[in-house]
Amino acid sequence: MPHAPSATLSRRHAAIRHALVSRGLDALLVTSLPNVMYLTNFAGSAAAIMIGRDRLAFVTDFRYVTAIETARGTAFECPGLELVVVDHSYDETIASVIGSSQGARVGFEAAHLTVSRHRWLEAKLGAGRSMPALVASEGIVESARIRKDDYEIAMLREAARRLSAVASGVFGEIARGRRERDVALAIDWRIRDAGFERSAFDTIVASGPNAALPHARPGERTLTESDLVVLDFGGVYDSYCVDLTRTVSLGTAGPRARAIYAAVREAHDRAIEAVAPGRSRFDIDAAARDTLGRHGLAEAFGHGTGHGLGIEVHEQPRISRRRGDDAGPGDDDAVAAGMVFTIEPGAYLPGWGGVRIEDDVLVTETGVEVLTDVATELIEL
Amino acid sequence: MPHAPSATLSRRHAAIRHALVSRGLDALLVTSLPNVMYLTNFAGSAAAIMIGRDRLAFVTDFRYVTAIETARGTAFECPGLELVVVDHSYDETIASVIGSSQGARVGFEAAHLTVSRHRWLEAKLGAGRSMPALVASEGIVESARIRKDDYEIAMLREAARRLSAVASGVFGEIARGRRERDVALAIDWRIRDAGFERSAFDTIVASGPNAALPHARPGERTLTESDLVVLDFGGVYDSYCVDLTRTVSLGTAGPRARAIYAAVREAHDRAIEAVAPGRSRFDIDAAARDTLGRHGLAEAFGHGTGHGLGIEVHEQPRISRRRGDDAGPGDDDAVAAGMVFTIEPGAYLPGWGGVRIEDDVLVTETGVEVLTDVATELIEL
Repeated sequence: MPHAPSATLSRRHAAIRHALVSRGLDALLVTSLPNVMYLTNFAGSAAAIMIGRDRLAFVTDFRYVTAIETARGTAFECPGLELVVVDHSYDETIASVIGSSQGARVGFEAAHLTVSRHRWLEAKLGAGRSMPALVASEGIVESARIRKDDYEIAMLREAARRLSAVASGVFGEIARGRRERDVALAIDWRIRDAGFERSAFDTIVASGPNAALPHARPGERTLTESDLVVLDFGGVYDSYCVDLTRTVSLGTAGPRARAIYAAVREAHDRAIEAVAPGRSRFDIDAAARDTLGRHGLAEAFGHGTGHGLGIEVHEQPRISRRRGDDAGPGDDDAVAAGMVFTIEPGAYLPGWGGVRIEDDVLVTETGVEVLTDVATELIEL
Repeated sequence: MPHAPSATLSRRHAAIRHALVSRGLDALLVTSLPNVMYLTNFAGSAAAIMIGRDRLAFVTDFRYVTAIETARGTAFECPGLELVVVDHSYDETIASVIGSSQGARVGFEAAHLTVSRHRWLEAKLGAGRSMPALVASEGIVESARIRKDDYEIAMLREAARRLSAVASGVFGEIARGRRERDVALAIDWRIRDAGFERSAFDTIVASGPNAALPHARPGERTLTESDLVVLDFGGVYDSYCVDLTRTVSLGTAGPRARAIYAAVREAHDRAIEAVAPGRSRFDIDAAARDTLGRHGLAEAFGHGTGHGLGIEVHEQPRISRRRGDDAGPGDDDAVAAGMVFTIEPGAYLPGWGGVRIEDDVLVTETGVEVLTDVATELIEL
């Protein structure tokens, strides 16, 4: 479980309460588990909270009561937590917690609550008099999470340091004749052995032509002389996610491989140079994309340049192309100090293979800090 | 990815189309990824389908185009799959696929679509003339998935055979002085080494007092003489999940440990004996629960007796207590041939420890087949 200090949790609660006031809400029902974790340090598989202006009701089932009670009185206990143990079903219990706020306007997380659960809650609450109004809201907790606080930055720095240490061992796992899936297993072992709770996603070991699939699954293919091998792996360290990709060559890389690798590396460097507080996330993406375009690889780069990291391995901000239907330039597009995200341009050529290079960066008050620390020169093994 | 034969996929499509007709729907938008996998063999991280009476539109993004094209012409290609590659965003593309069905009644999965996405789709579709109606539906694909077909039963048998083989190696990992987390890592390695894609959930190694937490996370505690240790682990084999728990004793178990173990084992055996087609899932739960109650352990067993297994590690049917608000006895409660679920009674005593014994069973035409095969006698190591 995360161990954010109680004072940090209090500041997070205050930020949410401030957002409630500005939206005219009396409380927010939080059903997204990553959001629940952010506000309470809870790391179990089922819970919900209702945070009001002077209340934090925490709903969970009997499996987690001991864990909650154990945190009481520690330096990372959740301030003001009022434990409500599920009776019968989560939704019944949530409805009764909401129902106790007669006449209130209670926000719910429209991006996380399903239509079924919403309709059930509406019907259940509608049966009472002076029912609280359920109001759709979006991104209240996510807006707080997008800029990491000191606790989170310390966690992400440590996680990135450990993942970088894993990387050097990973290169030693690459050998001709070894199956992709065996290399992936060895990487996952190294991640856990380095103190991570688990891999942050299914590790990618994509060799030769398989490297043309950005989300290849490691399979039976054996690593072969002159392959490029994309190695994309991440870890969850005390609930915080980091993510790293390197592409290595088995034997001396040919001219095409070298050229494509150099283009992707240049795109990676240009994008990192473009990171600074106030810069548009679209401009950071364009720094990578335009570089690849200049090398004739615009079509080969089909995904975004990066994604936020934190409690989730894919969160805000998205470092991506501006869409036609996005709003124009504005505060929403700007990255800000405290944001942590990946920079991971790639080039994928069906039938041939691919290259991706990925690091994790923190936006600082003055520019950028690269949290991962692994050389980006092409390694020939 | 799963490799259900094309003929099997066709039968699944026919079952869904039959359900559409009976509900007066022209098509169903499937956004649940496990449901998408069931109908198409697709194992990626993002896709949606719209299955109509004579159409199966498959929406995914560029990352998975190669994988889809590679399956064409194979024995497990998805019949009738019409590939629609995402342009801009998933929801834009889904809206345009739905929008092409003028005047139709299109079901959506209310238990899987968020309020945000639903509202966005409603607004988008509402902008056109002769808009298709979005109709909330529940459980259409899940109702098909609850009874496994021959392909799935073969996969689950093989997965359970492999997990049982893993178990005997797991017992060899238990040693005094070893940390829970190191044992968990070793178990996860064995699961992968046995051919599983990954662990089906975070492996539980709960020793001594930690065993009183049904969902304990393996931590720094070292295994100690006279501990009971709950080992709960599962694997995903070609997309199908199996799940196994054994509780072992470090050294000779004391009288209390023996008595509780014997009670849980008896509950496990009685529940398995209660499994047969037509039996109520509540009665199967009661067979375990009443047994524990007779041994004074009713309060110590706070969770359900079992859960369905398949593409998800927790799916229908739930082998649990009847709730006050459940309907009375009826077809819905009865288990049927082809269902696969766990039987996992336990007893948890805060401050002392706990015991859980779990196997995976298949309901057959005549009774029950236990898929996992590991002795249930208390092992003293």
